[in-house]
Amino acid sequence: MINIKEDEKLNVLNHSCAHLLAQAVKHIYKDAKFWVGPVIEEGFYYDIDLGDKKLTEEDLPAIEKEMKKCAKAAKLIKRREIKKEDALKEFKNDPYKIDLIERMDENETIITAYDQGDFTDLCHGPHVENTKLLKNFKLLKVSGAYWKGDSKNKMLQRIYGVCFETPEALDQYLKELEEAKQRDHRKIGKDLEIFATNDLVGKGLPMYLPNGFIMWNELENYIRNKEIDRGYLHVLTPPLGNVELYKTSGHWDHYKDAMFPKMEVEGEEFVLRPMNCPHHMMIYGNSIHSYRDLPIRIAEIARDCRFETSGSLKGIERVRTFCQNDSHIFCTPEQIESEFKGVVDLILEVYKELGIKEYRFELSLRDKEDKVKYFQDDEMWNNAENKLREVLNDLGIEYVEKIGEAAFYGPKLDVQVKPAVGNEYTLSTCQLDFCLPMKFNLNYIDSDGTKKTPVVLHRAIFGSIDRFMAFYLEETKGILPLWLAPVGVMVMPVNSEYQTDYAESVTKWLKENHIRVELDSRNEKLSYRMREAQMKRIPYTLILGDNEKNDNKISYRIYGKNETITVSWDEFLDLLKTDIKEKRLINR
Amino acid sequence: MINIKEDEKLNVLNHSCAHLLAQAVKHIYKDAKFWVGPVIEEGFYYDIDLGDKKLTEEDLPAIEKEMKKCAKAAKLIKRREIKKEDALKEFKNDPYKIDLIERMDENETIITAYDQGDFTDLCHGPHVENTKLLKNFKLLKVSGAYWKGDSKNKMLQRIYGVCFETPEALDQYLKELEEAKQRDHRKIGKDLEIFATNDLVGKGLPMYLPNGFIMWNELENYIRNKEIDRGYLHVLTPPLGNVELYKTSGHWDHYKDAMFPKMEVEGEEFVLRPMNCPHHMMIYGNSIHSYRDLPIRIAEIARDCRFETSGSLKGIERVRTFCQNDSHIFCTPEQIESEFKGVVDLILEVYKELGIKEYRFELSLRDKEDKVKYFQDDEMWNNAENKLREVLNDLGIEYVEKIGEAAFYGPKLDVQVKPAVGNEYTLSTCQLDFCLPMKFNLNYIDSDGTKKTPVVLHRAIFGSIDRFMAFYLEETKGILPLWLAPVGVMVMPVNSEYQTDYAESVTKWLKENHIRVELDSRNEKLSYRMREAQMKRIPYTLILGDNEKNDNKISYRIYGKNETITVSWDEFLDLLKTDIKEKRLINR
Repeated sequence: MINIKEDEKLNVLNHSCAHLLAQAVKHIYKDAKFWVGPVIEEGFYYDIDLGDKKLTEEDLPAIEKEMKKCAKAAKLIKRREIKKEDALKEFKNDPYKIDLIERMDENETIITAYDQGDFTDLCHGPHVENTKLLKNFKLLKVSGAYWKGDSKNKMLQRIYGVCFETPEALDQYLKELEEAKQRDHRKIGKDLEIFATNDLVGKGLPMYLPNGFIMWNELENYIRNKEIDRGYLHVLTPPLGNVELYKTSGHWDHYKDAMFPKMEVEGEEFVLRPMNCPHHMMIYGNSIHSYRDLPIRIAEIARDCRFETSGSLKGIERVRTFCQNDSHIFCTPEQIESEFKGVVDLILEVYKELGIKEYRFELSLRDKEDKVKYFQDDEMWNNAENKLREVLNDLGIEYVEKIGEAAFYGPKLDVQVKPAVGNEYTLSTCQLDFCLPMKFNLNYIDSDGTKKTPVVLHRAIFGSIDRFMAFYLEETKGILPLWLAPVGVMVMPVNSEYQTDYAESVTKWLKENHIRVELDSRNEKLSYRMREAQMKRIPYTLILGDNEKNDNKISYRIYGKNETITVSWDEFLDLLKTDIKEKRLINR
Repeated sequence: MINIKEDEKLNVLNHSCAHLLAQAVKHIYKDAKFWVGPVIEEGFYYDIDLGDKKLTEEDLPAIEKEMKKCAKAAKLIKRREIKKEDALKEFKNDPYKIDLIERMDENETIITAYDQGDFTDLCHGPHVENTKLLKNFKLLKVSGAYWKGDSKNKMLQRIYGVCFETPEALDQYLKELEEAKQRDHRKIGKDLEIFATNDLVGKGLPMYLPNGFIMWNELENYIRNKEIDRGYLHVLTPPLGNVELYKTSGHWDHYKDAMFPKMEVEGEEFVLRPMNCPHHMMIYGNSIHSYRDLPIRIAEIARDCRFETSGSLKGIERVRTFCQNDSHIFCTPEQIESEFKGVVDLILEVYKELGIKEYRFELSLRDKEDKVKYFQDDEMWNNAENKLREVLNDLGIEYVEKIGEAAFYGPKLDVQVKPAVGNEYTLSTCQLDFCLPMKFNLNYIDSDGTKKTPVVLHRAIFGSIDRFMAFYLEETKGILPLWLAPVGVMVMPVNSEYQTDYAESVTKWLKENHIRVELDSRNEKLSYRMREAQMKRIPYTLILGDNEKNDNKISYRIYGKNETITVSWDEFLDLLKTDIKEKRLINR
């Protein structure tokens, strides 16, 4: 889908349409006050204070109608430069604009306002020249949004919309948007009974239903076994810790806002952990290590809890509790290169095996000029950054360098992917860390008998199992490969009266061979039952009629295909086993 | 080991020795104030207020010395009846005794004090007649204990001890105590690097080390696969929930004291869950059910958190976070019998497979006279209790009936086991519940089209994985069967110079056959390396010399045995595979 923010023309058009929206809202809600109305990848939004009024989707048609009227009015959109003191006077009844103006330095920026008919808004611009150019728009949704994104502030009403130059372009976009919605893991997750949410359980706390747990468990075993094969040592640590632990790690100072509040118990303060580094540091520190023992790769499918604002929650992609596919690799500085390569190797291997193709690498480096943010050890940084670059170049990997995007403790590599709906996010990551082992006084005895501090690589392949599930449900459009499908095979007698016994023996035999199989011998038309199996996106449907029963054969259809193939029992099982072993996609 | 509380003579002796302890403490710490000094299974203790003084083990010899002196003084121990008003006067400077006296009703109990030389204590008695009978004692340990067990109260000093009639009996007991300590899972857990605790991580929050996780993971997979085979549906639900969820379930009113404090986030109140029933109710309630779908067995290896006082924490047996091997079976009233039988069957099957022999069944029933505590539906109770009895009788299971021990919501069956050190606890449980499904308005459509409320069976086989690990480490004395042993086979060349190549190829081959194997080819004496393998309780040690190398054979020793057996590679692998498949104990 087109990125409206990055298309120069559409950017201006959508930004102007945000003003049109504001003008229309002001006509309908006289006391409306306006915060900001930026352009985003999907169009635009405007954050509006409507007092106690909470908008719903049902309010949008009336606003759209008023916008059409404003557009038809064909008002000129006029730019006006304005002095700070005048701006403060002009907008004195609008605390939101005053907040913006007060933070502007007129020596640095020219303050401008745009007028269109009876509506004026403070804005950098640029805008289209006439409201009549803003006819082809659509308001998409409405949600609450805290002022400045801070949950302590007032909740504003955020209206989303999108605008194009022609009705055809708008229609095309809305069609694509609808397709994306169909591919949204929240819809697929509901259709396939993967997970459920309920406000009584709590916002951002999805529950994995039996179908979801099957997928979860397969993914967990897959990645863990891969890690074990590569010498990772899995552990299990508690999902909370003493606050002192996070003071030691520094998370309490730097990350507290993203954590749940602390709990006091018997004078001890506990907090749900947002990440697992401190626990893994403690595991390393639990015994003495020689340079010969390194690298030590501590890994865990680890439960974490983070405070995310309710507005940012999204299915199982962004939640308040999740399980990271986490590891901390403790190594000597000399081992950074080979360990980093091992991680990148693993990422590539997993992506290849699972058929993941749409992703991009970002290498985040420090800004050498920034002497405040970054841990100061130029040699270490140069050395590490060069090594990471070399590994990526050797592997022939394309990547973008992001200067100044590194964490203060070291450079990192991220793998970015794009969901069906919403912003790009990080799926896999590998971050170097020179600092944390020092905070925990970790060390190893080097070959010369001296104590040295190990380097740590934080890494996650799946990110979290939760997020990876969201990603893979969208990647496969919910047509899960056999190894992940909750039900892999649906067995149907053509006529429940005549072939159910045969269907039962096939079902039983598949079960004994560890295939997740179900029998649908309901007294319903075959076409009806097959449609249901399609809706559940079941990879294989067996259609067993008299021919199959008499010849002792199996006829199957693959999801989404119309041909029916007849094979022997063993041939069919071989096919399934190859599917599982090779993790083959169904629509391959 | 002998249960001192239940031995009439030892009970009196130990109770008297608690007074002797108090007398000695009073001689040393003039301001000491005394709470209670009861007899327990292991001997006695006394809870003493010593102001700010915190006792350590190092203080005990001096107290013992003073006790010897008091015993030698051969004072008569004299009973004295006393009126409540006189008692209040006599003990007026002792707030602890006043607290006790005020709660006594002299019409119901005769208040008595016991005098011995310069010491008097309020006590029901009886006691031995002279302190000289109290010579053969030992103080065992000291710990903090909140007054009345409430963490909001002052921390008292609790001194534990034990007393016998003869020095021989005392010695025998101390020897047995030492053996129990060796078998304590806290010691084995440390020796085998199963888990670690650290106050910086938090009290009651053990971390499973790589060895521990191997054991954990095998146990988790074992029980889950067993459940899946029996038609259980596994899910994964978050370890916390909205407070409203626990208000709905009733836990907030009745169980809050055992929960961590609530956390407020964006106006929503969350709390760590102490049990999983509410989440599983929500999963059942997430879709519509027909009587044809029942029973539905929702299961989860579920993370829970409970507030346990620091004094009650114990290794991985009693902790503040743990994973229950939980399930809730939703069924019709007619299915109670078969579902209960299924659970008992599963318990017996698991115990048999794992070689567990020391346990006893307790059937907790309601007290029919108690019209307040119990959910009132006599027919339902009678019906259910009779069914449970029938199942147990049919299976030929011995059990004890506990009248009035049922929960208010239904009868239950517990399986009780005894740890190396400390009190009996419940390992497996199955509880009927008539109430919770109603609180969540759960229902199914019965064959007549009406809505009915399902019955719920709460059940856990392992209790929690954590507690079961504690239990099984003690049960096996840490000599884990091959399927659970972190390292199952230790391969040793007799001489690292000559047979390391051969040892390496055996190791590689075992690894390829999914055996957890390690190679010890260090340049150390064989006897030294073998001793180390014994200390780690490794099931199989391979001793590979020139004979083995030349004949392409394997010589092995089983843990704890002295004979060396020589076999072919395939024979050895068959042995291992049978061990794993049958979960055979090593010292079988």
